[in-house]
Amino acid sequence: MPDYTAPTKDMLFVLNDVLKISTLDIPGYDELEADFTAAVLNECGKLTSEVLAPLNAIGDQEGCRLENGVVRTPTGFKDAFEQVKAGGWAGLDCDPEYGGQNMPYIMATAASEMFGSANMAFSMYQGLTHGAYSAIYAHGSAEQKATYLPKMVSCEWTGTMNLTEPHCGTDLGLMRTKAEPQENGSYAITGQKIFISAGDHDMADNIIHLVLAKIPDGPKGIKGVSLFIVPKFLVNEDGSLGQRNNLSVGKLEEKMGIHGNSTCVMNYDGATGYLVGDAHKGMRAMFTMMNEARLGVGVQGYAQAEVAYQNALAYAKDRLQGRDITGIKNPDGPADPLIVHPDIRRNLMEQKSFVEGARAFTYWGANLIDTAHRKNDQDADGLVSLLTPVIKGFLSDKGFDMCVQAQQVYGGHGYIEEWGMSQFARDARIAMIYEGANGIQALDLVGRKMAQDGGKHVMAFFAVIMSFIGESKELGDDFETAFLNPLKAASKDLQAAATYFAQNGIKNPNNALAGSYDFMHMFGHVCLGLMWAKMAKASHIALRDGTDDAAFHETKIATGRYYMARQLPATALHLSRIQSGADPVMALDAANF
Amino acid sequence: MPDYTAPTKDMLFVLNDVLKISTLDIPGYDELEADFTAAVLNECGKLTSEVLAPLNAIGDQEGCRLENGVVRTPTGFKDAFEQVKAGGWAGLDCDPEYGGQNMPYIMATAASEMFGSANMAFSMYQGLTHGAYSAIYAHGSAEQKATYLPKMVSCEWTGTMNLTEPHCGTDLGLMRTKAEPQENGSYAITGQKIFISAGDHDMADNIIHLVLAKIPDGPKGIKGVSLFIVPKFLVNEDGSLGQRNNLSVGKLEEKMGIHGNSTCVMNYDGATGYLVGDAHKGMRAMFTMMNEARLGVGVQGYAQAEVAYQNALAYAKDRLQGRDITGIKNPDGPADPLIVHPDIRRNLMEQKSFVEGARAFTYWGANLIDTAHRKNDQDADGLVSLLTPVIKGFLSDKGFDMCVQAQQVYGGHGYIEEWGMSQFARDARIAMIYEGANGIQALDLVGRKMAQDGGKHVMAFFAVIMSFIGESKELGDDFETAFLNPLKAASKDLQAAATYFAQNGIKNPNNALAGSYDFMHMFGHVCLGLMWAKMAKASHIALRDGTDDAAFHETKIATGRYYMARQLPATALHLSRIQSGADPVMALDAANF
Repeated sequence: MPDYTAPTKDMLFVLNDVLKISTLDIPGYDELEADFTAAVLNECGKLTSEVLAPLNAIGDQEGCRLENGVVRTPTGFKDAFEQVKAGGWAGLDCDPEYGGQNMPYIMATAASEMFGSANMAFSMYQGLTHGAYSAIYAHGSAEQKATYLPKMVSCEWTGTMNLTEPHCGTDLGLMRTKAEPQENGSYAITGQKIFISAGDHDMADNIIHLVLAKIPDGPKGIKGVSLFIVPKFLVNEDGSLGQRNNLSVGKLEEKMGIHGNSTCVMNYDGATGYLVGDAHKGMRAMFTMMNEARLGVGVQGYAQAEVAYQNALAYAKDRLQGRDITGIKNPDGPADPLIVHPDIRRNLMEQKSFVEGARAFTYWGANLIDTAHRKNDQDADGLVSLLTPVIKGFLSDKGFDMCVQAQQVYGGHGYIEEWGMSQFARDARIAMIYEGANGIQALDLVGRKMAQDGGKHVMAFFAVIMSFIGESKELGDDFETAFLNPLKAASKDLQAAATYFAQNGIKNPNNALAGSYDFMHMFGHVCLGLMWAKMAKASHIALRDGTDDAAFHETKIATGRYYMARQLPATALHLSRIQSGADPVMALDAANF
Repeated sequence: MPDYTAPTKDMLFVLNDVLKISTLDIPGYDELEADFTAAVLNECGKLTSEVLAPLNAIGDQEGCRLENGVVRTPTGFKDAFEQVKAGGWAGLDCDPEYGGQNMPYIMATAASEMFGSANMAFSMYQGLTHGAYSAIYAHGSAEQKATYLPKMVSCEWTGTMNLTEPHCGTDLGLMRTKAEPQENGSYAITGQKIFISAGDHDMADNIIHLVLAKIPDGPKGIKGVSLFIVPKFLVNEDGSLGQRNNLSVGKLEEKMGIHGNSTCVMNYDGATGYLVGDAHKGMRAMFTMMNEARLGVGVQGYAQAEVAYQNALAYAKDRLQGRDITGIKNPDGPADPLIVHPDIRRNLMEQKSFVEGARAFTYWGANLIDTAHRKNDQDADGLVSLLTPVIKGFLSDKGFDMCVQAQQVYGGHGYIEEWGMSQFARDARIAMIYEGANGIQALDLVGRKMAQDGGKHVMAFFAVIMSFIGESKELGDDFETAFLNPLKAASKDLQAAATYFAQNGIKNPNNALAGSYDFMHMFGHVCLGLMWAKMAKASHIALRDGTDDAAFHETKIATGRYYMARQLPATALHLSRIQSGADPVMALDAANF
């Protein structure tokens, strides 16, 4: 059975040494002194590794069951959820007016990494609730907030998001679910929604469904979609639970992974719903929380890779097989441990350098979200909007790949469910699909975000890189050769791709769209290259200043060197694919496939 | 539920138009006229698509069950296996002396692709039997052959291969299973073997286990391993079944996929075994059939990608979502089909160009095996030995990747087991692991095969490319630009990597081994590039000669252009990774990970 140990030291390195969060001029950040953040993360590490991680395999094996219309979660989930509630983890960054702890989003992100690594399926119950909280918080009436948010912040009630229908996922304009106005100001919601995570379960007293639906005679397509609160149990004026609403679980889906989370088909049969925000503005309400939700999925991607890596590493140190070709390392044993072999090293270094780079990247993203929200900084908002599809798409793709690589270290045992490595890969797979499949992320990046506000944000991104390079030359020739030059080269590739799109996308937009997926990956590599250069710089300075933890910082630099030498050069390949244009991709008639 | 249609036309194109098999001077190939091969493949296509494919999901859902020491296969498997036996499919390329049909191995390879696409777990029962047949055929005594082979060729009895033990997989020198000589000339086999595919089941009267074990007081390590026949039921002199042997199924493994195949822990408790070939020469006996077995796993890799692609394509044509950015394609419908979108095209083209290239590559490998066996051609044997780790490693890695991509086309439905796309990915995953994990394939390629016979075979490989390029320039400038120049560039990258290994591997072998995985992939790309250039040439000539199937050949050329423009440039990335040497990979002490 796999283990999980929260990588608190690596997390604190990013928060304190790289981002230096307590020194940043952002409201609330002044409280994030090293001792405080360490205490929060250690507490979260304890809960997640001791309580949630042991339930991960159980959740996978048992799955959820639909019994008499009610979903039963796996053994132990309910007790564990009580501990999450008791610790206030679900409301870490929520408004204190509703019982939240008002911590910056960056702290909630660090915590969510631990939850995701320890038990992804479990953590979705609180994750979805947080998403629903955010939507009501941003767009609900004062009365709606007062009625629902306190119970959602505490997770006494949980939330869901209902977008997809059987015939429409990406293209929500095709939606059929109806919301008919009632005399009392509420709406009667009728339709079927699918893929509803945490759609029903036995861990909360009520479930607050957020449902997208169309009010009859509204604008056609996506512009006629509105957002509704549809509680499982209606709430009386005094806050107590009233009658059961007309909604039911049609079916529990059998999935490749995240078996511990209930993925429901939800049937709404004239259910009572309450409009959130303005009629026909449902998509806007959804989009305001999209950056956070998508960043959260990126976290899931690398969080699964983190726990898979931890276990692959332990196995590689423990399993004796073959001998080091350069000289026996374990003369008293029958063979050397796997970790002596270069190809096992390559595999482990790919995982390690990805996970640590990904962590820095998402924490940077979370920091930008805090800057945007807490300082109302439009530039930070624009930059994180640009980076969001990259965080979501690149980190979930690579996170899955790394889980598959971790599984490979185990040889045949990696394929046997008992060893737990298969679950990491199966669970991680969903992150590439939900919250907008990764092809949609690429489309969002190239088709919308690059051009947003006249391309201002992508220029700001390149400026960040150039100024970092400029400021860092003082670190000397070795640093420049190992870190700054590869970063500069990769950044140039990214610029060349953007230029190609600009020059060729006008005469044929497919010249841009056919390269969108490569561009998203290329962008991701440049971001991780920047993060590694920043981390290496922090470690370089720590060593120069005589840190008493030299091995830690030397390891950081060596891991960064791996990324720069072996991963970052992928940008050139992506560029060459992009520059081949739309022709190779679009040459065939659909009939000739 | 997914469908499978045997891609007979694409297969025949490779056999007839590209390899021109009936014109080759290889014993038995003169019978392979186009009508005959089409008849065989059509028959096989019927059986696999109509009988085996519908059992694929059932096998996945039901799995095998261990009941009172006996394994029960999923519903329908037994009846289907009777049809396979009746059709003589298991003995297609076996010796007619034992009831085989004596067809060239290339035909068995084409058939095995269909079996693998339709139902990978099912086809392993006959696949393992074929492997055991080959070992006994090559190394068994006349009496052993007469006793076992006729029943194995017909699959009345099936076979298994017992190598792995709990503490040793790759490093078989650590093996503990004992074979103690008995007075009657047999051996008493005692030990535990794991991961035994088809280790027990209810579809055959007897199971012939081939078991590696150590005779006491033999040479230490891998040189003291011998091969034994250990039947489930001992065979009487008259060929009837005698007493039950002292072996049992300890456990059925729960796996990520191939649930329809029984993966057993086998316990041998003084079981009666018969030595095959010479004592202590068990590994040699295993290695003689390694090329075929590993090529078979490469086939599984792309065969899963083929069936996954077929279904992703159908979904992409059927599912309506969004509109073509360059103009509406389905004005009467609520949206356009997915296939109009460039990123869906990219995804599909990657799958299509991989599968068709992989097919040509393995058929070429099978053709070389025929040349080696049927003409006793040492050069062909050397060349296919070089290519075998590439076929196994590259095609199983990419085959899995392509299944994951096919799953992605389905969006959320790809994650739901009911739709069947998850199974293709889960089943394909094992091909990267068994028959030597892919890291071992890379080690075999770089550490052994490249230098074999003084590097003669790799030089022969490059000569094949250069002479093809030389002979093909007459096809004109367009062909040269689109196909020959990229092939030449990729081949140069591969040569540069080989040169790097030669120059830097002597002072430190890790400089070669740290790049072995990249080298295997690079080699795979060059092979598929060569195959696409050959296929495009065949189609180019067909078009020039006025074929009446122009659309087919134009599609081939367009698909090849995709591969050359978008996939083959990966060689440059692999080269740059290789040339970064061992340092980035080996920098960390194991303790500092």
